[in-house]
Amino acid sequence: MIGEIPARIRERLAERSLELPVLGPPRYAYEPAVLCGDVLHVSGQISRTAAGELLGGTLGEDATTDDGVAAARVCALNLLARMHEAVGLANVRRVVKLNAWVASSRDFVDQPTVVDGASQLLRDVLGDAGGHARTALAVHVLPQGALVEIDAVVAVRE
Amino acid sequence: MIGEIPARIRERLAERSLELPVLGPPRYAYEPAVLCGDVLHVSGQISRTAAGELLGGTLGEDATTDDGVAAARVCALNLLARMHEAVGLANVRRVVKLNAWVASSRDFVDQPTVVDGASQLLRDVLGDAGGHARTALAVHVLPQGALVEIDAVVAVRE
Amino acid sequence: MIGEIPARIRERLAERSLELPVLGPPRYAYEPAVLCGDVLHVSGQISRTAAGELLGGTLGEDATTDDGVAAARVCALNLLARMHEAVGLANVRRVVKLNAWVASSRDFVDQPTVVDGASQLLRDVLGDAGGHARTALAVHVLPQGALVEIDAVVAVRE
Repeated sequence: MIGEIPARIRERLAERSLELPVLGPPRYAYEPAVLCGDVLHVSGQISRTAAGELLGGTLGEDATTDDGVAAARVCALNLLARMHEAVGLANVRRVVKLNAWVASSRDFVDQPTVVDGASQLLRDVLGDAGGHARTALAVHVLPQGALVEIDAVVAVRE
Repeated sequence: MIGEIPARIRERLAERSLELPVLGPPRYAYEPAVLCGDVLHVSGQISRTAAGELLGGTLGEDATTDDGVAAARVCALNLLARMHEAVGLANVRRVVKLNAWVASSRDFVDQPTVVDGASQLLRDVLGDAGGHARTALAVHVLPQGALVEIDAVVAVRE
Repeated sequence: MIGEIPARIRERLAERSLELPVLGPPRYAYEPAVLCGDVLHVSGQISRTAAGELLGGTLGEDATTDDGVAAARVCALNLLARMHEAVGLANVRRVVKLNAWVASSRDFVDQPTVVDGASQLLRDVLGDAGGHARTALAVHVLPQGALVEIDAVVAVRE
C-alpha cells in the first residue's frame, strides 16, 4: 500500500460501515492493476468479498435487483482496494471509466440499476473524483458464477 | 456544447440526411463522457434514438442484419453527439477504439458486418479521424432490450 | 513492420516453436491497431490462425479447457503480430491490459484458466513487459464461432 487512506475517505467509509478489503494476489497469470503513464488499469473484480464469500447467481432467475446492487457494491469496494494497493487512494485523481457485466437471464434488462450500486458507492466514497463514464452489459454467466464483474480505468496524480 | 460543428462535418452529415441528436443526461449514476488528459472515454450508447425510439431485438431471431446495421448507426450518431457535447467535434483528433456488443442468438456470428454500420458512419462523417481499432462481440441480451451498444475511446486536441 | 523483432524475443519464440503470424488487413471497416499518444489499442483478435484455421466451439460443450488454452494462445500470437506490424515489438514497453472473452456454456465458469494461455504466452515471449491487468469474461457466442477473442492496451516507447 502506498500511504494512508486520506482522512476524508476514511470518514466516508466509516459513515457507511464500509471497510476496504485486503485482497490477495490474483491466482492467475495477471496483475491486479497496471499503471500506464498516469492512467491505472484495474483488472476485473468479481463480486467475491475478501472473506471469500461469493455473491453469485443470475439476475432474472435466482437473484433480485437488490442482490445485484449488493454484488456491484462488493465489486466497487474491491476496485477501491486495488486502486489503494497500486497507487494509494490519496493519488486517485478521477475514476474515468467503469466497465460492468451483470450475469442475467434473457428477460432481465435493467443492468444499469444494478451497476448503479457500484457507481453510487464510488461517488459516496471518493466524492467528485468518483464520477465516471460507464458501460453496463449483461452476460449469461461470469467467472466462478459471480453475479457482477467490474473493471476500471483510473486517472492518477503524477 | 463546445463550439459549432465544423462546416465540413456539417456538410457530411447533411449529405447523408443525418442529424446529431441532442441527448439528455443519463438517468443513472454515471457521466456520458469523461476526459482523461487528451483521451475522452464515452459511455456505452445503446441503439435508442433521441426521439426515444428503441431499436431492439436479437440478431438471428427477430432482427435482420440490416436492422443491426441501422441500430449500429444510431449508436454511432449517439457517440458523435456525446463527443460533441463533451469536447466539441472540432476538437476530436481521432476515434481510437470502439467496443461494440450485438444482441445475438447463438447461431448468429456475423457481428462484424453489423458493427460496420457504426464504423462506416464514423469514417463518413469524420473522415480519417473516424478510423479506429475495434472489438465486436455478441451478447445474449443488452440493457433495455437494445439491439446494439457501443462505447468509444477518443483522442482529443489539447 | 517497424524494424526487426529483437533478438531476445526471437529466441524466446523459437524456443517455444512459435512464429509470429503475418495477418492481412481486417476484412471490415476498422484498423487492426491505433496509436493514441504512447498507447496502442489493438483490435479484438479471434482464435483464427494466419493459415486460416478457426479454433472454434464452446467451452463446457464441444471444447475442453485445453482447447480453450490453445485458442487463447493463438489470440496472443495474433496480438503480438498486430503490435509488431503497428509499432515494432522493440517499441513495446508494456502490455497494460487484456480484455478476453471465452465462448462458454452456462455451466463453465473457469474462464481465467483458459485466458491464462494468452497471459502466460505474453509473459514468456515479452518477459516483464508482458505482465498485464486483465478482465476475463464468458460470452454465449463469438464472431465467426471463435472459441476465444482478446484485445489489448499496450504502452509504447516514445
